Amino acid sequence: MTSPFIHDVPPQRVVFAFGALARIGEEAERLALSRALVVATPGSGARLGRQVVDLLGSRSAGLHAHAVVHVPKAVANAGLAAARETKADGLIAVGGGAAIGLAKAIALQTSLPIIAVPTTYSGSEATPIFGMTDGERKITGRDAKVLPRSIVYDPDLTLGLPAAVSAASGMNAVAHCVEGLWADNRTPVTVALATEAMRRFGTSLPAAVTNAGDREARAQCLIGAWLAGTVLTAGTALQHKLAHVLGGLGLPHAETHAIILPHVMRFNLDAAPEAESHLQDALGSSDPADAVAAMLRKFPIPERLREVGFEQSKAAFVADEIAAAKIAMPREASAADIRRLLAAAY
Amino acid sequence: MTSPFIHDVPPQRVVFAFGALARIGEEAERLALSRALVVATPGSGARLGRQVVDLLGSRSAGLHAHAVVHVPKAVANAGLAAARETKADGLIAVGGGAAIGLAKAIALQTSLPIIAVPTTYSGSEATPIFGMTDGERKITGRDAKVLPRSIVYDPDLTLGLPAAVSAASGMNAVAHCVEGLWADNRTPVTVALATEAMRRFGTSLPAAVTNAGDREARAQCLIGAWLAGTVLTAGTALQHKLAHVLGGLGLPHAETHAIILPHVMRFNLDAAPEAESHLQDALGSSDPADAVAAMLRKFPIPERLREVGFEQSKAAFVADEIAAAKIAMPREASAADIRRLLAAAY
Repeated sequence: MTSPFIHDVPPQRVVFAFGALARIGEEAERLALSRALVVATPGSGARLGRQVVDLLGSRSAGLHAHAVVHVPKAVANAGLAAARETKADGLIAVGGGAAIGLAKAIALQTSLPIIAVPTTYSGSEATPIFGMTDGERKITGRDAKVLPRSIVYDPDLTLGLPAAVSAASGMNAVAHCVEGLWADNRTPVTVALATEAMRRFGTSLPAAVTNAGDREARAQCLIGAWLAGTVLTAGTALQHKLAHVLGGLGLPHAETHAIILPHVMRFNLDAAPEAESHLQDALGSSDPADAVAAMLRKFPIPERLREVGFEQSKAAFVADEIAAAKIAMPREASAADIRRLLAAAY
Repeated sequence: MTSPFIHDVPPQRVVFAFGALARIGEEAERLALSRALVVATPGSGARLGRQVVDLLGSRSAGLHAHAVVHVPKAVANAGLAAARETKADGLIAVGGGAAIGLAKAIALQTSLPIIAVPTTYSGSEATPIFGMTDGERKITGRDAKVLPRSIVYDPDLTLGLPAAVSAASGMNAVAHCVEGLWADNRTPVTVALATEAMRRFGTSLPAAVTNAGDREARAQCLIGAWLAGTVLTAGTALQHKLAHVLGGLGLPHAETHAIILPHVMRFNLDAAPEAESHLQDALGSSDPADAVAAMLRKFPIPERLREVGFEQSKAAFVADEIAAAKIAMPREASAADIRRLLAAAY
């Protein structure tokens, strides 16, 4: 029977075009920004950041190229200080999850509007979800004021993404889509967007990984990453909980998502016929878990947990953590189920 | 090659549940309405309107049950006067396109927020498009302030919709979806939503037409109608232009949409491979035009233009009007093309 739902998503403007980076000044003007602080990672991120500073001209408050993955507290505080010192009236996050994450941490304290210029498939630009780390502790939350007001997608900025990063970042986005199809708070809109993203990744992610310079495949993957990001508002379930617990053991985020995804799909899809039918259509395959596993096998990233440093002795701990979380959507996983799943992925 | 696009859609809250009508007071409270004027058509619309007035209790400013299709100017003025006399601070449109259209006409002048409670598949509740008639002249436009702030969808309110109305109103929504797949301003979001709506209509519209009381099919069609409405923001092309010109000759709106749709699809789909592939997936058919024609044949509504009063002598006029509009998306239709299409639909 059709489940009730509430759809209530804050608006976000998206400009998508080859060469869209050149329109960053226009977007800053649209938000009436006169002193926008550009936030980026050091290195190649900073190079792109300087380009954005140049494009902004007098609307720029300078470049803060000190973003670090997982936004350590000290990094967030330094970003906040930079925004205050430069009297910034807006933030322009240029890069992947690290740059966007830092901009969100600053916006959380200051309510400054963010424009995101993404260069990976993290999808963070499309969510009101923020995260910070304080030593070992990871704090995550959700606040409408950290959702970027607009996103400028320029597929040309992703041409340099190495094959392994494209594959891992893309599979991470694919995991958002799959999980969005059975997540508790899914709506017909998130289901539609997850399906459309899967369709685009199914065709174009292998092409983008094989040929980093395939502009058309890059464009399709970037669209897929956007849609996959919006789907995260539907909530998460076993896939993300398992990736989170494994991440707590020090396993790499995107790679771990990729490795466990076909196994989680095999476990869940029998209990999620609507998700299965959407995935069958999107991937043109009667066995979507198999199709995802086949895609993964061709990618230059690890395929098994043992390749990313998982110790089998931790399986019982992970299984107990997951079982205790009682994720019922679409089916409850017992500790024994999780141990079997981890053994298969090992 | 991937086309550039801008996605910039104002937010709208949607509450969907069997029995959701009971939550209308809560939604009014959320918008801080203390004097909401309920707008409906006379007759059965007024009955439902009175029920809403009761549910609103002290938050109601009364019932204005004088909505008429196409919103004649005098009707709009009377609605405006009622809103002013009752000192309404919001509007609750209960019904189909007529009631929602009147609420939009009032909101256009007053900026009053609208809550829509739809009972048909018109999709008007999901668009910022308004329309009024002044004698023979039809004025349409687009204004963010007429977009309902929230929509309360209760599939139980559609159980009474007669088979012929369900079929015509449903096919009208299907036409929005199909056209949305090749419209000029489509984005990956509108494409995804159009595809998802088609998938739901393909399965559930025949069931809802056959058995008016099939609650599950009704729920699926209402979701389809919502998604189809949001797709209208992507713009329209040959299907809607042709329906509009034929409507100017006095042909009925929804029925005309239904009749011409398979013919427009046959003409356009060869030139729109992305639209075709999405429709094939959604309908599970290699020939989507044929699938739509087959669906239409089983419905208790006219299948040919001659059954709805079209005079063949008008074909040249219609063909010239359409050719002059130079609708290039996905292919340009010459006057000869349109004459052939009209002959086939006759």
